[in-house]
Amino acid sequence: MKISLTSLIAITSLFFIQTGLAQTDQPKDDWKPATSNQPGKDYPKVNSEGRVMLRIVAPEAVSVGCTFRDSSEFKKGEDGAWYGYTRPLDEGFHYYSLKIDGAEVPDPNSMMYFGAMRWGSGVELPAHDQDIYALKNVPHGQLREIFFHSESLNSERRAFVYTPPGYDQNTNQRYPVLYLQHGWGENEYGWGNQGSAAKIMDNLIAEGKTRPFIIVMTYGLTNDTRMGGLRNFKIEPFETMLIAELIPYIDAGFRTLADQPNRAMAGLSMGGMETKTITLRNLDKFSHIGLFSGGSISLEDIADMEAFKQSNKLVFVSYGSREVGGSQPRRGGDPQANVNALKEAGINSHYYISPDTAHEWQTWRRSLHQFAPLLFKH
Amino acid sequence: MKISLTSLIAITSLFFIQTGLAQTDQPKDDWKPATSNQPGKDYPKVNSEGRVMLRIVAPEAVSVGCTFRDSSEFKKGEDGAWYGYTRPLDEGFHYYSLKIDGAEVPDPNSMMYFGAMRWGSGVELPAHDQDIYALKNVPHGQLREIFFHSESLNSERRAFVYTPPGYDQNTNQRYPVLYLQHGWGENEYGWGNQGSAAKIMDNLIAEGKTRPFIIVMTYGLTNDTRMGGLRNFKIEPFETMLIAELIPYIDAGFRTLADQPNRAMAGLSMGGMETKTITLRNLDKFSHIGLFSGGSISLEDIADMEAFKQSNKLVFVSYGSREVGGSQPRRGGDPQANVNALKEAGINSHYYISPDTAHEWQTWRRSLHQFAPLLFKH
Repeated sequence: MKISLTSLIAITSLFFIQTGLAQTDQPKDDWKPATSNQPGKDYPKVNSEGRVMLRIVAPEAVSVGCTFRDSSEFKKGEDGAWYGYTRPLDEGFHYYSLKIDGAEVPDPNSMMYFGAMRWGSGVELPAHDQDIYALKNVPHGQLREIFFHSESLNSERRAFVYTPPGYDQNTNQRYPVLYLQHGWGENEYGWGNQGSAAKIMDNLIAEGKTRPFIIVMTYGLTNDTRMGGLRNFKIEPFETMLIAELIPYIDAGFRTLADQPNRAMAGLSMGGMETKTITLRNLDKFSHIGLFSGGSISLEDIADMEAFKQSNKLVFVSYGSREVGGSQPRRGGDPQANVNALKEAGINSHYYISPDTAHEWQTWRRSLHQFAPLLFKH
Repeated sequence: MKISLTSLIAITSLFFIQTGLAQTDQPKDDWKPATSNQPGKDYPKVNSEGRVMLRIVAPEAVSVGCTFRDSSEFKKGEDGAWYGYTRPLDEGFHYYSLKIDGAEVPDPNSMMYFGAMRWGSGVELPAHDQDIYALKNVPHGQLREIFFHSESLNSERRAFVYTPPGYDQNTNQRYPVLYLQHGWGENEYGWGNQGSAAKIMDNLIAEGKTRPFIIVMTYGLTNDTRMGGLRNFKIEPFETMLIAELIPYIDAGFRTLADQPNRAMAGLSMGGMETKTITLRNLDKFSHIGLFSGGSISLEDIADMEAFKQSNKLVFVSYGSREVGGSQPRRGGDPQANVNALKEAGINSHYYISPDTAHEWQTWRRSLHQFAPLLFKH
C-alpha cells in the first residue's frame, strides 16, 4: 500500500493528538508528597501538572471521593487503600475534605487549617514563586498569640501579632502597624498558617525590600453569624472592638508608632470589605489601605476627597487573574477603572493582578508580598 | 400478706441495686456541647458521668465507631446521622478518632490536636478543677512561635515561648526559664494547646501563687523515629540542640536570668525521661527538675551526691493515681520511695499524685500547676 505524504501527516497528527489527549487523561507520574502533609505521611501527593493524588484506608467503604470537583473516580489500589486524583489545580493552597460513604471528613494525612467554616484539610501545590513564603535561614520575627479583654463584647479575644526580627533587641525602636483581616469562613489563624504572613515578612525584611512593621490579626466576626450567612453581618461591633479596644491595647502593649501615618489596614475578601468600610469611616486612624479580592474604592465611595487626599497615603487593590475575567458588571465597579480614577485624582494607588490564580490564598500571599513594600514609606 | 422487716430491707436494697445498674447502662441525659468543639458545633456532647456522645453524618456507611474502647454501638438517629457514646472517662482531655467503614479519620466536629502521632480529634471533659486552666479576664502572657537555626541539625526549628504578663513593659526585669517537653507521639504544640500551659501560668501569676517565668517548648525528637519507635531514640542530637543552640538562642533573644539557678527543665512521659537524662548530665545548666509521668530519680541515678546537692534546688515527681497502682515492679524503682530517699538525702523533693487520672493531659496540667509555684524560690 502506498501512503501519500498528506495521509502520513494526517495520520501522524492524529497520533500525536490522541497521545496528547491520553497524556491529559493519564496524570504525569512524577508524584511527590505535599509539603502540607502531616509528619511522615506520603500522601497527599502532588505532580508537576498541579494534580493532587489522595489516599485513604477505608477497607469496608462502598464509595470514596473528595470535595475537589472534576476529580477522578476513587479506586482501590493493590494495597487495599483507596486512591483518586484531582484535575490540575492552581498553584498554592487549597482546602478540601474526603468523602467516605457520604461522610465529609478531614483527610487524616493532611495538616489542619481553618477555612470554609471548619478546621479541616488543605493541600499545598508547588508554585513558581514559592520562594517568597519559604522557611529560610534568615532572621525570624515572632508570631505571638495574645488575649485581650473586650468590654464591648464582654469576652477574652484572641489575636496574633507578628513582631519583626530584632523587635526584642531594638528596644528604642518603634514600629508601624498593619491590621490584617481574614476572609469569610476563616479566622485569626489564617494569615499566620496558610497565609504564611510571618515567612513572607521575614523574607522581605531579610532582602531589604520592606520596612519592618508589626502585623495584628484578629477574628473579624463578633457574633455567631455562621448560620445566618454574610447578609446578617453587622460591622459595627467589630469596628468598635478594633478601634476602641484592640488598637489602644496594641499601642499600650507593643512599641508601636501610634499615629495615623503609621497605621494601615488590609484584608482579603470579607476582610477587604471590612477594611474599606472601617478605613473610610476612620480617616484619622488609618493612612494605608489594602483590599485583596475584596472590592475597590471608587470616587463615589469617598465623601470628602480633599480630606481623603490629605490623610491617605496608599490605596492598594488586588485580585487573582481568574477572578476579574468575564464581562458581567462587578458590584462596586471595575477595580482597575476605580484604581485609575483614584490615581488621576491624586491618590497613591496600586493595582495588582496575581497571575493564574482565583479567589484563593496564593492570590493573597502574593498580595501581601506586593503590598508590604509600599507601606510606611515616609 | 405480712412482710417482715428483713424482707422489706432485702427487697428495697434489690430495687436500688437494680436501679443503680440500670442508671449505669443508660447514660444520664444532661448532655452539653464539649468546649473542645469546633465553632458552632453541637457535638461531641459530654454529660455529668464523663461520657462523650459522638455524632457523624455518614448516610451510606455500613458501620460507624470510634477509638474509645467500650463505647456503645453506633446507631442511626431520627435525623439520619450516626450516634454513639463512650464509657465514663476521666476528667480532662482525650484524643480520639472516628471509624467509618474501617477508615480511621478525625471527627469533623472537634478541634484538632497533635498526639498519638497525628493531628486529629480530641475532646475535653469538664473537671472539678478546670478553673486552673480557664481563660479568664486576668493579665495575659503571650505564646510566641519562634524559629531558630540549628547548625547541628541543619534545619530551622520551631519553638513556642511563653512570656509572662508584663514582659514587654517591665524592660528592666529578667526572668528565669523553664524548658518544658512534650511526650512521645506529641510535639511542641502540645503544652500550648491541650496542655493549657499559658492559661495555667496566667492564672497562677494573677493569684500571686508563682513567680513569673519564661517557658520554652520545642520538639523533643530530632530524627524520624516515628516508624522505628521509642527504642530507636537517641537523645544526644536533641541534647546538643537544646544545650548548645536553643538555650544560647533564648538567652540572647529574651530577657532571661541566664544562669543555672534560674533554669529548670521538666517534661511529661518521654519528655520526663529526656529531662532526667539531660539534667543529670548537665548539673551546671539546670537547678530545678520536673518529671511528670516520666520516671523518678533514685539515689543510684546520681553519680556524685555532693555535687548534686550543691547544684540542685528541686526534684519534682508526679503521676496520675491510675498510673501508680498495682504491684508490678516499676522500671527505675517506685517513684514515691525514690522521692522519699532523695528527701532523706537532703534534696528538696516533692511528690504529687493527680487524683483519678491516668497517663493523660489532666495529670500533666495539674503537675505544671503544682510544679510552677515551687520553682525559683530564691
